[in-house]
Amino acid sequence: MTLLAACSKSTSNSSSNSSSATATSSKSGSYQVTGQTNSSQYAGVIKNGKYLTSKARGVTANQNSNLMNLKSFETGLQDISKKQFSTTKYVFQEGQYLSSSTVENWLGRKSKSNPEGLNPASNGSTDPDKRNPIYLQSVEEQDYVQKSGSKLKISGVTIGLAMNSVDYYRKTTYGAQYQTNISDATLEKQGKAMAKEVLTRLRKKAALKNVPIVIAIYKQASNDSLIGGKFISYSVNNGNSISKWKALDIQNVVFPLKTGESAPNSNDADAFSNFKSEVESFFPNLSGVTAQAQYKDGSLQGMNVSITTQFYSETEIRSFTQFLADQAEKYLPSNVKIDITVSSTADGVQSFLSRSSSAKSFSTHVFGSY
Amino acid sequence: MTLLAACSKSTSNSSSNSSSATATSSKSGSYQVTGQTNSSQYAGVIKNGKYLTSKARGVTANQNSNLMNLKSFETGLQDISKKQFSTTKYVFQEGQYLSSSTVENWLGRKSKSNPEGLNPASNGSTDPDKRNPIYLQSVEEQDYVQKSGSKLKISGVTIGLAMNSVDYYRKTTYGAQYQTNISDATLEKQGKAMAKEVLTRLRKKAALKNVPIVIAIYKQASNDSLIGGKFISYSVNNGNSISKWKALDIQNVVFPLKTGESAPNSNDADAFSNFKSEVESFFPNLSGVTAQAQYKDGSLQGMNVSITTQFYSETEIRSFTQFLADQAEKYLPSNVKIDITVSSTADGVQSFLSRSSSAKSFSTHVFGSY
Repeated sequence: MTLLAACSKSTSNSSSNSSSATATSSKSGSYQVTGQTNSSQYAGVIKNGKYLTSKARGVTANQNSNLMNLKSFETGLQDISKKQFSTTKYVFQEGQYLSSSTVENWLGRKSKSNPEGLNPASNGSTDPDKRNPIYLQSVEEQDYVQKSGSKLKISGVTIGLAMNSVDYYRKTTYGAQYQTNISDATLEKQGKAMAKEVLTRLRKKAALKNVPIVIAIYKQASNDSLIGGKFISYSVNNGNSISKWKALDIQNVVFPLKTGESAPNSNDADAFSNFKSEVESFFPNLSGVTAQAQYKDGSLQGMNVSITTQFYSETEIRSFTQFLADQAEKYLPSNVKIDITVSSTADGVQSFLSRSSSAKSFSTHVFGSY
Repeated sequence: MTLLAACSKSTSNSSSNSSSATATSSKSGSYQVTGQTNSSQYAGVIKNGKYLTSKARGVTANQNSNLMNLKSFETGLQDISKKQFSTTKYVFQEGQYLSSSTVENWLGRKSKSNPEGLNPASNGSTDPDKRNPIYLQSVEEQDYVQKSGSKLKISGVTIGLAMNSVDYYRKTTYGAQYQTNISDATLEKQGKAMAKEVLTRLRKKAALKNVPIVIAIYKQASNDSLIGGKFISYSVNNGNSISKWKALDIQNVVFPLKTGESAPNSNDADAFSNFKSEVESFFPNLSGVTAQAQYKDGSLQGMNVSITTQFYSETEIRSFTQFLADQAEKYLPSNVKIDITVSSTADGVQSFLSRSSSAKSFSTHVFGSY
């Protein structure tokens, strides 16, 4: 338990090496863990003084042209992991069991030269409704480790399968982009079939024979979406075959709602509208006030508000940020995590406000420059 | 004193309109003030429900091709104002006495068609060392108001004169850019002469006949500088002629130091070097770790650290941010305000850490997406 005590944030040990827990040595080198900035986040693995990056580093990023999908995929996968692997008992390790080439093979179409491809072989058609689409867009491995003697021992793995709701393709290189839409039912069926195969393959690795393997299915948002996709289902597997799937009820909503759209809770939509109109009438030349909102089981989990404005002056940004703190407290839903980012195209992020779900007031920060 | 009580942040009045202090009516409309997020910042003026923008809005921004100059000019001018106009007794108002056209005329060269030009008439030469350069690059007006009966009454004005250390010019439209370097002595002499003229002009305005007028001289950094310029001198004027000038000893430093450069305190340079090498050895593929530092009277005031990295994954950013919190606490100078921003070219700001001068630990924020 030395590891657990040492990796929580502590002010008493700051004169010692506060970045490391017990440094341990093993045949494969010395391990440490990063500090935790708070107990709801995992500490991460440091090996030989360096952050242990994923064996498939960058593959997922390259696979996703919508960066919001990638962020929500990885963050959501960690959220699912937290249900199984407590942040106080497990340390997060970037995936070490699937290499770049393995992941690339899995993401390919099945063929003679790529028998491991999880996506279906081409049926020769390029018609949007007749072709075999690419169902699986990316795979993410997250490892959860625990201290065992002088080593960090793999104690659990979480695998995310990011499934396309839309498969974008070209008939010829540099040709026009076409798309095949994939229904929710097909997406889920394909994901579950692939999960079965992935579990079988992972169980063949000696280190992963007996650890719990969580597999989660993610539905990618389309490339033009202003919010990422969502996890729809996951299973926690202790044996060699897939256990029961647990459905997740997650809804992502972008405010303001488009005509005909509705939010799980219309109060939230109204609250945002009031906030938006208050802010827009107060400050001239705002070019956009939008928000991402996420619901779980029908209840609001949090909101990311983005405000875009032209940069006029640092003093305006300061006054505007103060004003936003008041208006957000007054109008936006309480008891949920809210981030507000003010940015301009010329200058990037200019200020930001945030409030945790338990806080009443927003903390604010204006990005300055000497 | 009702205004002062109401404009400080309060949780007790949150059921009322928390964005406003006492709403007042006057012939020129109804005034309110924004909340203060903390007592070291000014509340700002709201008129008829809208933020009262500067009469010369955008002129200063257009004049400055180095946005860092603009930010440091405006923030620094407010810092000077705070010495004279306490944030608890005065409310900040964007400049209302100098219009865009006035400021544009003042910034022009003196000529028959522009007798108000503060910059010298052209002497016909285009030679860098023989021509009359543009000394004055931009002018900023900040007003400080107080409640008086049912009105907000102008109680003080601060004027910033941003002087070029380098004047960039072209001999022909779209031609090559040339530059005239301006010595510190000339810059200061020109600035002080202009201040005298500016004071005389402001005193002719009825509302500004008897209020304190602070005039501050700013030395612009060159366009390729990685840090803004600095204020070199200011005067607080209660009469019609310029009072004594007070010299400011401000130094801006960019870390890592270039060969031959030195910082006012070599410990800070060493601290930053250690932090940088620790961070770079820990995390692969960082493309830059730099910092802006500001010194007043030889002592460090604060540091803005910028870390640029390629975006690989959200989980890496989270671990990296935790790691940075530890390393910054361990290596960077204590008892000064420090901001650390992690960004990528593809995705802008990804996370940020900050610590006030009185705090020990950093607070961290990772920008997420649903």
